[in-house]
Amino acid sequence: MIIFKIGGGQSINLKGIAEDLAALNEPKIVVHGANALRDELSEKLGISKKVVTSVSGYASVFSDSKAIDVMMMAYAGLRNKRLVELLQSQGVNAIGLSGLDGCLIQGQRNRGIRVKENGKIKILRDFSGKPRAVNKTLLTVLLEQGYLPVITVPIADENGFAINSENDDIVALLQSALQATTIVQLIEAPGFLENPSDPDSVISRLTIRELRMREQQSAGRIKRKLHALVKIFENGKPRVIIADGRVEHPVKNALNKKGTVIQ
Amino acid sequence: MIIFKIGGGQSINLKGIAEDLAALNEPKIVVHGANALRDELSEKLGISKKVVTSVSGYASVFSDSKAIDVMMMAYAGLRNKRLVELLQSQGVNAIGLSGLDGCLIQGQRNRGIRVKENGKIKILRDFSGKPRAVNKTLLTVLLEQGYLPVITVPIADENGFAINSENDDIVALLQSALQATTIVQLIEAPGFLENPSDPDSVISRLTIRELRMREQQSAGRIKRKLHALVKIFENGKPRVIIADGRVEHPVKNALNKKGTVIQ
Repeated sequence: MIIFKIGGGQSINLKGIAEDLAALNEPKIVVHGANALRDELSEKLGISKKVVTSVSGYASVFSDSKAIDVMMMAYAGLRNKRLVELLQSQGVNAIGLSGLDGCLIQGQRNRGIRVKENGKIKILRDFSGKPRAVNKTLLTVLLEQGYLPVITVPIADENGFAINSENDDIVALLQSALQATTIVQLIEAPGFLENPSDPDSVISRLTIRELRMREQQSAGRIKRKLHALVKIFENGKPRVIIADGRVEHPVKNALNKKGTVIQ
Repeated sequence: MIIFKIGGGQSINLKGIAEDLAALNEPKIVVHGANALRDELSEKLGISKKVVTSVSGYASVFSDSKAIDVMMMAYAGLRNKRLVELLQSQGVNAIGLSGLDGCLIQGQRNRGIRVKENGKIKILRDFSGKPRAVNKTLLTVLLEQGYLPVITVPIADENGFAINSENDDIVALLQSALQATTIVQLIEAPGFLENPSDPDSVISRLTIRELRMREQQSAGRIKRKLHALVKIFENGKPRVIIADGRVEHPVKNALNKKGTVIQ
């Protein structure tokens, strides 16, 4: 079982990914983002994205009801269905699902984000949370019948309401539930970079210990990303490959271990 | 088996529908529209809706690639996921699917619409077509496992590409595939009206013969709607109830035969 996490950047080569996935004869699941599309749509609709940074140093998007509307349109709507279409046109029987559908990904809504505003601690509560459980029965039935699940946010909270969640956390949970041996993350860079502004600084191999060290040394959104990566290894021993999603054959390229391999 | 077709109007009471469906202990499927949302989104994004009328008198939306983008956002994205959320929060394990997903609704792309422009016949080809086949295996598995399929456009064409299709045609095809005994159409009117501008002119009972006569006497979009209704009775003998989707309990109201019953 391979889990493919496809980044939501504008320059990700979805067509190349679809072609590669059609040629790959292995059980697989896709989890995708759509942040570039979401940002573009938000801007066009005049809905500004709010990013808050918690007192503990994690940055995250603040998801009010309108932000969830935009998420549904960009992630579960346009990006998900265009990706399903690309796969279908390559002969892959893809089925696009948000975490809400069939309660595929059930989560726990955040109680609130502790933020500092003008020196004071304030609690902001939005529609976001952490994924806690996977509807493994549904996924198994779909996989057994030859479908490729193409999964995205939102997910369902305890009461069935739509909440935003980090795709990294969803991937970690899916890995644990399905005992996936490999996680491929396709991003808008050639791999995990030593220096984010230098594409030639790809770290080709990384141990889990090194990953943990880097997490402690970082901050903000990168810290959260690294934290999610670290969590993957708490619940299993998969191989994680972070590779370029913009090249002609992103999946083939990644499975040939071009990029960063964490083990 | 009851098929619920939920109109895409702004004033449809989705919450009331979700509550009613939660209390209804019968195999069911939902097919929904989102035309008000689509029109609103198109306008906000500056993508104008193009409506063409064929030489044979049928009016339809001309779906170019951008129109399909908007459809994916409005139908498969926002409307579908908010409806799934409402159902999930009522304890109904709804699963939202476009016709593309798992190739649920496979269609045939239109070769082109013959239109008259400035007195000349011209052929316009868009991303639209007719539904031809239902993935009954997938639907059956989902129904057997207790899910409520919540279906919307786009559907897949012969090559897996996303195309627009009339929900009425999809409902007719689903009725035939699943041998549904009842079709409930929830609209923004108290039923089928003798005079479209007079809400008191509901025709409470209509025979199939009367339906056919009315089809011949009408034009444009109404003609197409009536044509789809007529087609339902070509492939089966269900009961069709057209009722108000705006009231407090739209489903209960409809199943109590308030509105128009066609048999």
